[in-house]
Amino acid sequence: MIIYGKNVIREALYKNRPINALWLDENFNDYKFIKLLEDKKLKYEKVSKHELSEIAKNKTHQGVVADVKPYETYTLDEILDQNEKQRFIILDGIEDPNNLGAIMRTAEATNMTAIIIKKTGQAPLNATVAKVSSGAIEHVRVIVVANINQAILKLKSNNVFVIGTDGNTNLTTEDMPLENSLAIVLGNEGEGIRPLVKRNCDMLVKIPMYGKINSLNVSVAAALMMYKIIG
Amino acid sequence: MIIYGKNVIREALYKNRPINALWLDENFNDYKFIKLLEDKKLKYEKVSKHELSEIAKNKTHQGVVADVKPYETYTLDEILDQNEKQRFIILDGIEDPNNLGAIMRTAEATNMTAIIIKKTGQAPLNATVAKVSSGAIEHVRVIVVANINQAILKLKSNNVFVIGTDGNTNLTTEDMPLENSLAIVLGNEGEGIRPLVKRNCDMLVKIPMYGKINSLNVSVAAALMMYKIIG
Repeated sequence: MIIYGKNVIREALYKNRPINALWLDENFNDYKFIKLLEDKKLKYEKVSKHELSEIAKNKTHQGVVADVKPYETYTLDEILDQNEKQRFIILDGIEDPNNLGAIMRTAEATNMTAIIIKKTGQAPLNATVAKVSSGAIEHVRVIVVANINQAILKLKSNNVFVIGTDGNTNLTTEDMPLENSLAIVLGNEGEGIRPLVKRNCDMLVKIPMYGKINSLNVSVAAALMMYKIIG
Repeated sequence: MIIYGKNVIREALYKNRPINALWLDENFNDYKFIKLLEDKKLKYEKVSKHELSEIAKNKTHQGVVADVKPYETYTLDEILDQNEKQRFIILDGIEDPNNLGAIMRTAEATNMTAIIIKKTGQAPLNATVAKVSSGAIEHVRVIVVANINQAILKLKSNNVFVIGTDGNTNLTTEDMPLENSLAIVLGNEGEGIRPLVKRNCDMLVKIPMYGKINSLNVSVAAALMMYKIIG
């Protein structure tokens, strides 16, 4: 797959992601970055700005584009471990790659165990997500499941306490049992968490809000929850 | 100015923003929304999807576009009040309208006193910001200043304690003097807070991070700070 942007490609290099091809803008002058490529003994091709933009489909590439092995994903069984205090983020259908990227960035900074996403009806792990994640995509484990409800049941049977975010409940983020392994469910940008998913949660909590509209961007809500469950 | 999207236009109506013109998609069928227009005795024109997209410059308009009086802004003097415990968010050059919109949404939910932005080198209060803010732009007061450093000096001389966010400091968000009136400074997406602005702050604090990359989206960092200073 094609990825672009300095942070994204730098992290791919650090994690030794297989690189099929690498292109730099012919006027690229970040010598620290070029030195990194040379230290890693990576071949690159210098191309015109126009050619580079074509390869990166006109996205903001910062002068560097690569064709790399796609990002790995995991199964729930590979990650679940009852001997650890685990922290999962379940995304019930996030559609905007900007939100997924920003959530990954916070998941990296808060050292979450993994993000759980659906196979369909969900922003895929593409170049935009990688770019917005600022390279965090290399460090955050992503579990892809066919069915969120079945994943929740499996988490619960492995002693993970599952918490949904919902505006219509009296419980707040202060009421979460932080001593447990936890999974936090966040809903789609427009529709929120689907009703059946909500019913399968062990607990619903609301993020306190004090305005008139009282709606938060989902990546903001996710960040507040992630910081709450590590703190 | 042209704005679009149901939440944005609904909030404009609630706040009695002067509407010069209003267009609906000829197949628009949100009858609750149409009833609101009729309750407000607002004239609207039904146009083709194609025409509507042209007026909204191909943005996601959800079938409703309006030409409205531009958003008001304030001066620092109009808002500063030493008899209140005030909460300001200072943006030192946020460029991405998505970030500004998301920050407004959180500022609304946390009931911040006002957001302070620069006149230049800053995402303007345009339709994208309004849309991303989900209508919060109607409720959040925005102070526009020519110079952030002079604004900081004025805040300080009015007993507002000014806190910058910075990764390279030992103080954390736990160290903030919440009993004071506060202003939180957030920097540009790429460059952070400019050095002189940083030096003018009363205090620099870092948001704790536990990963390898440790970088947060600015609207996420802003949200964590806003929730910290109300909590």
